[in-house]
Formats: sequence, C-alpha cells, structure tokens
Amino acid sequence: MKLLRIALLSFALGGALSAFAQPAATPSTYEQTAASQGAANKEAGPRSFPAHSAPVPTNEVSPEMQKMIAAPYPPHFNADPKDAAEWKELINRRAAGAIAALPAMKEKLGVTVKPAVMGGVKVFIVTPNKMPPANRRRLLVHVHGGGYVFGPGEAALPEAILLAGFGSYKVISVDYRMPPDAPYPAAMDDAMAVWKEAVKMAKPKNMAIFGTSTGGAMTLAMVLRARSEKLPLPGAIAPGTPWSDIAKIGDTYETNEWIDNVLVTWDGWLGRAAKLYANGHDLKDPQLSPIYGDFHGFPPAILTSGTRDLFLSNTVRTHRKLRRAGVTAELHVYEGMSHAQYGFDMNAPETREAFTEIARFFDRHLGR
Amino acid sequence: MKLLRIALLSFALGGALSAFAQPAATPSTYEQTAASQGAANKEAGPRSFPAHSAPVPTNEVSPEMQKMIAAPYPPHFNADPKDAAEWKELINRRAAGAIAALPAMKEKLGVTVKPAVMGGVKVFIVTPNKMPPANRRRLLVHVHGGGYVFGPGEAALPEAILLAGFGSYKVISVDYRMPPDAPYPAAMDDAMAVWKEAVKMAKPKNMAIFGTSTGGAMTLAMVLRARSEKLPLPGAIAPGTPWSDIAKIGDTYETNEWIDNVLVTWDGWLGRAAKLYANGHDLKDPQLSPIYGDFHGFPPAILTSGTRDLFLSNTVRTHRKLRRAGVTAELHVYEGMSHAQYGFDMNAPETREAFTEIARFFDRHLGR
Repeated sequence: MKLLRIALLSFALGGALSAFAQPAATPSTYEQTAASQGAANKEAGPRSFPAHSAPVPTNEVSPEMQKMIAAPYPPHFNADPKDAAEWKELINRRAAGAIAALPAMKEKLGVTVKPAVMGGVKVFIVTPNKMPPANRRRLLVHVHGGGYVFGPGEAALPEAILLAGFGSYKVISVDYRMPPDAPYPAAMDDAMAVWKEAVKMAKPKNMAIFGTSTGGAMTLAMVLRARSEKLPLPGAIAPGTPWSDIAKIGDTYETNEWIDNVLVTWDGWLGRAAKLYANGHDLKDPQLSPIYGDFHGFPPAILTSGTRDLFLSNTVRTHRKLRRAGVTAELHVYEGMSHAQYGFDMNAPETREAFTEIARFFDRHLGR
Repeated sequence: MKLLRIALLSFALGGALSAFAQPAATPSTYEQTAASQGAANKEAGPRSFPAHSAPVPTNEVSPEMQKMIAAPYPPHFNADPKDAAEWKELINRRAAGAIAALPAMKEKLGVTVKPAVMGGVKVFIVTPNKMPPANRRRLLVHVHGGGYVFGPGEAALPEAILLAGFGSYKVISVDYRMPPDAPYPAAMDDAMAVWKEAVKMAKPKNMAIFGTSTGGAMTLAMVLRARSEKLPLPGAIAPGTPWSDIAKIGDTYETNEWIDNVLVTWDGWLGRAAKLYANGHDLKDPQLSPIYGDFHGFPPAILTSGTRDLFLSNTVRTHRKLRRAGVTAELHVYEGMSHAQYGFDMNAPETREAFTEIARFFDRHLGR
C-alpha cells in the first residue's frame, strides 16, 4: 500500500519509531486528505480509506435511536472466552440483562408468555392480549439471534414480544440448544422439531418464520431444510439482518467494520462464536451460510438492516438473491442504524416502525 | 481525539515531525486495532474508525460490476473550476465520452432517439423498437443526473436508453438548462414545462417520472411542485439514489466518504456544483433538497442504491420518509456498488436487473 510506504518513509526521515507509536491520524486538511486518498486510489483494486470520525446522524432518526447510534462499543465486542466455562459466564451475564427488562416489555406491549415443550424442544408461547380475528388462525415461529451463543431461555424473548405486541400475532419462540454445549446442527435440529409440530397448529400458509441476525440465518436455513425434507413451507418469512454468510465474506464486513457499534467486527467474539458453532463444518454449507442455498420457491420475505450494519451486505446479498430467484422480497434500511438496533429499545419509534412493517407484510402475504 | 493525541505524543517522542510526514497507517495487528478502536469508542458520541482497505466483493457481484467497483477514483473527483469557462471545459470533456458511447447503446438496446421541443424546452424522444400493447398508452419522463452541471444534450441519454431498451417503454428525456449559465430554478422550470406538455400525450396515471442522482432529486421535486401547482401527478416514480439532501447531511456522506469511487466525497466537485446550482438559495428548500418536503400523497416509488453509495443515506432517508407518509415504496440496494453504478455498463447483469426491476414496478403500478 502506497500510503503505508509513505508513512514508513516519513517515520524513517523523522527519527526512530517509538515503540508505542500508533499513528492513526488523518491528514489534517481536506486538500491533504484528497491528495493522499487520490494517490492511494489511483489504480484499480481494493479501496483504501482514511481514519475518520462520523457524527451521529439526526435527520429521519429519532432521539432514542440517536442515543443507540452514539453508544460506545459493547464491552464484550472483542471477548475471547478460553473455554466452556468462560463462554457460559459471558452468556449468562448478558442474558441476565435481557431477562431483567422482560416484565416491563410484557406490560407495555400487552403480551403473556408461557413456557412449553414442542417436539421435545423448549419453547415460549407469546400471546398478545388483543388479536384481530384474521390473526387468530395465524401463527408465527421465532428463532432468536445472538451469534448461536447468546440468548438462552427467556433472554431470547425480546424480539418475540415486540412482534407479538406491535404486530398482534401469536408467536412460538424456540429456545434452541447452543454452544458451548451443543454445536451445529443442534440449533437447527431443535428449530425443525418445533416447525414440524407447529404446522399441526395452523395452516402452514397462515404461518411465518422470523428472526434477527442468527435468527435470520436460521429462518432461511429452515426454509431450505423444510424444502429438502418435504415439509410444508411457511407463507412468509422475515429474516432481519440475517447472518446469511457466517464467514467474513461480504462488502460491509469490511466497509462498516469499526463503524457498527453492536457487532463492531467479525474478528472479535462474533467470528469466534461462528467457529464454535460450526465445530469444523464447512462455513459455506447452506445450513450454516444460507446465502449459498437455492432460494427458488421461497415464500415472500421482508428484510431489515441499517446503513452502519456490519450485516448490511448479508442483508442485501440475500435480498438480491431472492429477487433473482423470482421471490417477492422487500428491503428496509434505516438511517445510521447498526446491527439489529431496531429491536433494542421498545420506546424508539423505529422499533415500532420496523416491527409494524414486518407485521403488515405478514398481513398481506399470509393466508387467512 | 484520543488517537490523535497518542499519535502526536509518539511523534514527539520519536523525533521532529518531518515536513511531509503523513501518517496514515492502521496499527498492524488486529489486537492493536481492537485496542485503539476500543479506546477511541469507549464513550458515547461520534464514531471513530481507522484507515482501512476493503477488497472488491465477489459474491452476488458480476465480473462487470467487480470491474466498476475496483476502478480508481475519477480524475475529476476533486475538480474545482475557477470560472464558467473552466466548468464548461470539464462539462464538455465528460459529455464527449458519454456521447461517443451512444450509437452502440442504441444499437444493442434497440431504440431510436429523436430530438424535439416541448413547452419551449429541448427534449429527446427515446422509442424502443418493440413495445408490449399495454405500454403503448404509457409514457415516461426522464430527468438526467450529473450534479446539475453534467450531462448536457445527448450526454443525458444513457439512462433513458437503458430504461427504454430494458423496460420497453417510450421515454421523453428532458435536456434542462444548467449552470454555469442557468442556476436554480432553471432546471426545475424546464422539467415542469415538459411535464405540463407531456400530460397531454397520455393519462397521467399511465405515466412515470424517473432519474438518478440529481435526476432522482428532481423527480421528487417535480412531484412536490406538481402538487403545489395543482398539476396532475404521475402514476409512479423511480428516484434512483436521489440527491435528496443537496447539503452534506446524512450518515453515508461520512461513512462512505472515500469508499464510493464515483462521487468520492461531497467536498470535491459535488459540493461545488451544489453551491453553483443553488446560487445563494437555502439548501434546505424542498425544491433543492426534496427530503425536506411533505411526501404524503406521493405515487408509488422504487429506489435504488448500493452498499458503497455516498447517497445510500439520501436513498434510505427518502425511502423511510415515503413509508412514514404511507406511500408504497420499494428499496433495492446492490452489493458493493458505489453511486449510480447500476447505469454505467449496459453489459453488466446488474444494469439489466436494476432497470428491469424499475420497469416491472411501473408495469404493476401504472394505469393502462
């Protein structure tokens, strides 16, 4: 890289490189940046871009979302648990925070939650206090996010409660097994066991599968697996910012790295969780990275992401591949939003908006 | 900024700062980057991100598009013409390249082009050799892109030819007046004069307005102005990556700065053209920045952008504001694509795909 060579040259001229020199400055004026960037990008190839600071966007962004966009990196972004015990400590610590927020969510959104077992798998049945008549014959299956490691037990529930409450749908949320105890394919086996039972409770065309991040990838993988196992397909799906390529493949893994303040980078806990879950399996197996599956014949899909989302490319690659397969597919991208932030604050207008878009999409596409 | 302070400290320790020292290096290992980024983003506020190099994405991206994504910055990205003569020299030099490509485009896409005058304004009538019966009673109006300065005369035609050819629609392309000779509101006056004549040629509900970048902003501004002047509205619109905020306001003006290899930065020729066109008018006037207009009652809209597009935020802000106003609005975002690259190479599969998406959207929403 030319810039690196210039930097090294200038260090050599300027004196011995201090042991803790960590140059990270952009040139100080616009014209200097334009000159150095022009030089670094004057030939075809990878795109070089400078260190930069981006303000919190304010237009078409609510104060609640601005607060999420401004938030610092999460403390665990670079967590590197050394063994099962360290993973569980991190998983349980994060779960406790999610579970503590549930009573207020259930109260505000007017839903009840009951644990159950379906096909031998633990689930939660989330029922809104009010349902329009058409939705009484409809049913949603929720697969939670969390990189295949986070969100055990009730910690999986926030998104299910948001869609039940804002969308007025009954939801079965799958408490699937996860690493470190149960790597791939345990999570998918559990989700499919629940799907097989769920399709006895309503017409499959009246049902949808949804989930965010890992749950979005599992949503896509469930449709692939249902098709290959000759099981009924749902009438619609909502893979939210799906982890459709579990490897670090896709443009915004690079361009939004260090910009997304939720996932931050694949090279932190996220990629470590990917390897823990995959447990030696090929990361391009469509059951692990559903972007490599065949999307022909998929039900109508609605996808959600944000301009700072590390998974924006996972989302748009999935959207385009669905469209190229002739599938009805809607895309919604929110200004300034990092990964999955549309599900973090039930009081943010964007949260209501995103889940209402999904629910109205289901209204249009599910059978009655 | 903490990082800058560390960098300056290390220079002070390392020796005198060379006059041409331009440190641009990222720390060399992932763990160093994670540590410095974690330190720089440990409090709420603007997002700091490091210098970075992003490879050309290859999945869900055609070889033709990969070539465009890999391309160097355009030589004029930081052009700063000092007077009208210098602007015209640049404008005409760029136009010559576009015009030279037209014969092959017309031939391959099977369209004819005839100059005409409508409402006192120069236009081109672009007619496909084959049109399905439904489209013979439909008509599109095209407003070209180019930052309100580029694309005079026939240089405006590539996008009109692409939609006429791939979409099988008859198109009126408006050769509106531009700076340096004619600043705001000349371009909009010309576009509206054509619209007033065009609605006599077909039912307005059978008509659409479309355009990319500046043309996308003008598309939105035309609907606002038609509504305020009690003129008929079109049946659908396609604002492609619209310059909906002409000022440098919006998240990806920052996060995709130096990553987009078409516009590169607002601070180069683009912002200079904005000021030349606005000619002292308020940049938040909805006729200059239509994002500040009221979108209630707008016709169905289809929007197109890319993950590296400097105007991704202009696009998604417009999409969300349309949706919040209850308007049917579709969003399509292409992997790795910078600003407007879906219209640059008629042989790229993404070009056919983007214009086919727009045409089929018009098919669904225009009257017959």
